[in-house]
Amino acid sequence: MTQSRAVAAQDGDGLAVGELIGLNPEIARSAIGALDSGRTDEAAELIAALHYAEVADLLEQLNPDHRAAAVDILAPAFPPEILPELDEAVLEDVAERLGDRRLAGAIAGLESDDALLLIAALDETQQRQVMQAIPAALRAALEQGLAYPEDSAGRLMQRDLVAVPTFWTVGETIDYLREADDLPNDFYDIFVVDPGHRPVGTVALSHVLRTRRPVPMRDLSRREVATVPVGMDQEEVAYAFAQKNLVSAPVVDDGGRLIGVITVDDVVDVIHEEAEEDLMRLGGVTGTDIYEAAIDTGKARFSWLFVNLLTAILASIVIGFFEATIERIVILAVLMPIAASMGGNAGTQSLTVAVRAIAMRDLTSANAWRVLSKEGLVGLLNGVLFALIVGLVAWVWSGEVSIGLVMAAAMAVTMAIAGIAGTAIPFCLSRTAIDPAVASGVLLTTITDAIAFLAFLGLAAWWLL
Amino acid sequence: MTQSRAVAAQDGDGLAVGELIGLNPEIARSAIGALDSGRTDEAAELIAALHYAEVADLLEQLNPDHRAAAVDILAPAFPPEILPELDEAVLEDVAERLGDRRLAGAIAGLESDDALLLIAALDETQQRQVMQAIPAALRAALEQGLAYPEDSAGRLMQRDLVAVPTFWTVGETIDYLREADDLPNDFYDIFVVDPGHRPVGTVALSHVLRTRRPVPMRDLSRREVATVPVGMDQEEVAYAFAQKNLVSAPVVDDGGRLIGVITVDDVVDVIHEEAEEDLMRLGGVTGTDIYEAAIDTGKARFSWLFVNLLTAILASIVIGFFEATIERIVILAVLMPIAASMGGNAGTQSLTVAVRAIAMRDLTSANAWRVLSKEGLVGLLNGVLFALIVGLVAWVWSGEVSIGLVMAAAMAVTMAIAGIAGTAIPFCLSRTAIDPAVASGVLLTTITDAIAFLAFLGLAAWWLL
Repeated sequence: MTQSRAVAAQDGDGLAVGELIGLNPEIARSAIGALDSGRTDEAAELIAALHYAEVADLLEQLNPDHRAAAVDILAPAFPPEILPELDEAVLEDVAERLGDRRLAGAIAGLESDDALLLIAALDETQQRQVMQAIPAALRAALEQGLAYPEDSAGRLMQRDLVAVPTFWTVGETIDYLREADDLPNDFYDIFVVDPGHRPVGTVALSHVLRTRRPVPMRDLSRREVATVPVGMDQEEVAYAFAQKNLVSAPVVDDGGRLIGVITVDDVVDVIHEEAEEDLMRLGGVTGTDIYEAAIDTGKARFSWLFVNLLTAILASIVIGFFEATIERIVILAVLMPIAASMGGNAGTQSLTVAVRAIAMRDLTSANAWRVLSKEGLVGLLNGVLFALIVGLVAWVWSGEVSIGLVMAAAMAVTMAIAGIAGTAIPFCLSRTAIDPAVASGVLLTTITDAIAFLAFLGLAAWWLL
Repeated sequence: MTQSRAVAAQDGDGLAVGELIGLNPEIARSAIGALDSGRTDEAAELIAALHYAEVADLLEQLNPDHRAAAVDILAPAFPPEILPELDEAVLEDVAERLGDRRLAGAIAGLESDDALLLIAALDETQQRQVMQAIPAALRAALEQGLAYPEDSAGRLMQRDLVAVPTFWTVGETIDYLREADDLPNDFYDIFVVDPGHRPVGTVALSHVLRTRRPVPMRDLSRREVATVPVGMDQEEVAYAFAQKNLVSAPVVDDGGRLIGVITVDDVVDVIHEEAEEDLMRLGGVTGTDIYEAAIDTGKARFSWLFVNLLTAILASIVIGFFEATIERIVILAVLMPIAASMGGNAGTQSLTVAVRAIAMRDLTSANAWRVLSKEGLVGLLNGVLFALIVGLVAWVWSGEVSIGLVMAAAMAVTMAIAGIAGTAIPFCLSRTAIDPAVASGVLLTTITDAIAFLAFLGLAAWWLL
C-alpha cells in the first residue's frame, strides 16, 4: 500500500489543504512547453509542485524525448511512488532512463507489494540487473514473491502486517504497537492468530481505539475471517472484496498460516484493470496501448483484424451463393446490409449484458435458461417491430411489396437468433478456458451476418424468382 | 460503510474461518428447488447459512414467485445489509414485498450512506410512504442527503465521522474515543479541524495507535488534506481515490466546513458502476438489465437500434448510387461487405482505446494530436497489410486483377480513416455534453460504412466501367 503523500509537501512545513483534482491540462501544456524549449529550471519548478500521481500522468503524456528530460530532472531524488502509477510501456521507458542503480534505490523505497509489482513489470534482463543492486534481504523477499503465479493473491499481498496472539489484551497490543519498529506504514486491521500462526479473527483499529486496556483482543474479533488462499486469482479477490465490502483480508498459505494481507486500495487497481480488460477485449484490443509505438500497436491489433477478415469472407461466401439472384434483383444488394447491421447490433446488446453479467457472477448455470429465453423474447419483440419498420422501408424503396415482406421476415428471424446467440455464445465460452470477452464478438457477428444474408437472400431467391 | 458480517454468524459464538467465495451455484439450485416445491423450512435453513451478500445474489437469481417466497422467509428479521447489495430492479421488487413498515425498519438499521442510497433508489410514492415510517431524526438527515444532486459526493458520503481540535493530544483523543457513544462503527482516519470546523489534517488510526499519549494530534497529521467538495461528481471522486491511493477523504461544504467522509469501499462500488457504464454504452445498452422484464429491456434497447437503423439506411443509400455498377459487375455486391466490416472493426479498436483513455484522463488536449496521428498511422499500416491480403482474395475470387486493385485501394483508405475517426469522434464528443461512450460507436460505423462502400464501389464505377 502506498501512502498518500504529495511530492510537493516534502519540503513544506504547513498543512496544505487542496481539492482533489487530476493533472491540470494547462500545467501539462506549460511543462511540455518548458521541456520543449529546454527551460529546465522552469520545468523542474512545475514538476516539483505536482502530486506524485500527477507526475506519473505527465510522464505518460510526454513524447519520448521530453520524457527523458523530465526523468533526468527528477532523477537525483526520484520519488519512488511515481513508478507504480505508470502504464507498463511508459514504465519500461522511465526504468531504462533511470538506470539500474537508481531504479533499485527507488524500488527499495516502496512498500513490499508495490516493489514486487514493479520488479515483475520489468523485462527479464533489466529485472536481473536491478535485482543485483537491491539489498539482499529485500531481494530474497522479492524472489519469493515472484515465485507466486502472475495475477495471484501472492503477487498482490503486502507481507508486513500486525498479528497478535489470542490471549493478548488491548493494552498489551497498544504497548506492542508503540514499541515495535518493523510495522507497516499504514494498516487497518490487526489479525488475531493461534499458536500455529493461523488467523482466527480480525480486529478493526477503530475497535481497538475505542476499547479499554484490559479487554482481550479475542473478544473484539469479528466472527468471520474471510481468508484468501495465496494462489487465488486477483479477479476472484477483487470480486470478494467488492461483494463483501472488505477493507483488508488475510492471505494464508496451503497450511492455513497467515503470510500476508491484501488491502482494498490494491483491489481498486485490480478492479480498474479487470473492467478495462473486458472493455478492451470486447473492442478487439489487448490493452490501453496509447503509449506504445505505432508499429507495436499495429502488430497487436493485426491478429484480431485477421480473424475478423475470415468471418467477413465467410459472410461473403454466403452472399456468393446468391449471385444469380442479385444479378436479377439488384436492389437486394442495396438492402442486404441493413439486415446484417441490425442483427449484429441487436446481438451485441445481448452480448454486452451477458459478458458483464458473467464477470459479475449474475449469469450462472442457475439462471441461464431464464436469461436465455428472455433475451430470445427481447430479440423477437424488437425483431417484429423492426420487421414492420424495415419492411415498409424496403417496400417503399424497391416499389415491390414482396421485397418488403422478404425483408420483414429476414429481420424478425435474424434479430431473434441474434438475441439468443448473444447470450448463449459468451455463456458457453465461460464454461471453457476461452475468455468470453475475447472470442464472443467475432463468433456472434459471423453468425448474425450469415443468418441475415441467408435469410434475406434465400427467401428472396425462393419466393421472388 | 457496511461492516463485513455474516448473516449466519449472528447466532454463532465461535470464530468461523472461511474462504472468500461467491454464492455457490449448487446451494442456489438447492434453494430454488426447495422454494419451488414449497419446502419452506429447508429453504429457510439454506438461506440462513449464507452471507448477506450471497443472499442478495440469490434473491437476484430467483424468479418473481420464488423471490417473494424468499423475502417472506427473511421478513421477520430481515438483515438490512442485504438491501444495498441488490440490483435496482430486484430491490424494487423486494421493497414492495417487504412493505413500508419493515422497509423503514431495515433502512434505520443501515449506516447513513447506505440508507440514503436505498431511499434514493425507491420510486417516489414508496419513498414518501417509507419516509413517514422512519424516525424523525433519521428522516431529517435523509431529506438533507436527498437534496444533494444524484451521483454527487453528498450522496456518497457517510455523515458520522471522528474530528478532533488541533490542540488535542493522542491521549485525549484515545480517551474521547473510549467514552463517546455516537461514533461510526468503523473508521480509518481521524480528522483534525480548526475552530471553524475546517479540516486541516488527517491522522491514520495506525499512527494514533503507534504514538505515545502526550504527542499532539497536529504533529501526526498528513501534510496534504485532499478535500472533496460536496457537489463533486462521484466519477471524479472515484478517479481521485484511485489516482492518489486514498482510503478516506473528508467532504466539505461551500464554506470549507467538514460535513462528511467518503471511504474507499464506497468508491469500489462507484468504480464498478462507472466501468460498467462505459462497457454498456459502447455495447448500446443502458445497464445490466438481466433482471428486468423482457418488455422493459426491449423498450430500452429499441431507441439505440432505431438510431442504428438510420445509419444502416444511410449506408444503403450510398450503395444505391451504384446500383447500375453492381448490376453489371455483381461480384462487387459479394465483396463489398468485407471492406465495410474491416473498416468498422479497425475503427472500433481505436474507439475502444480512446473511450477508455478519455475516462482515465490519459487522452487530453495536451496529447490529442500525438495520439491522433499515431492512430492514423496504425490504421494505415494495417490498411496496407490488409490491402495486400484482401486485394489478393478479391483477385482470386473474381478472377480479375482490376477488382483486386480496387479492393486493395478501398481497404487502405477505409482503414486509415477508420483509425483517425475512431480517435477523433470520442475526443470531440468529450469536449461537448455528449457521453463519448454512447454516441461514438454509431457515428463511427456510419462513417466507416459510408467510406468503405463509397471507396470500393466508386473506384469500381470510375475505373471498371
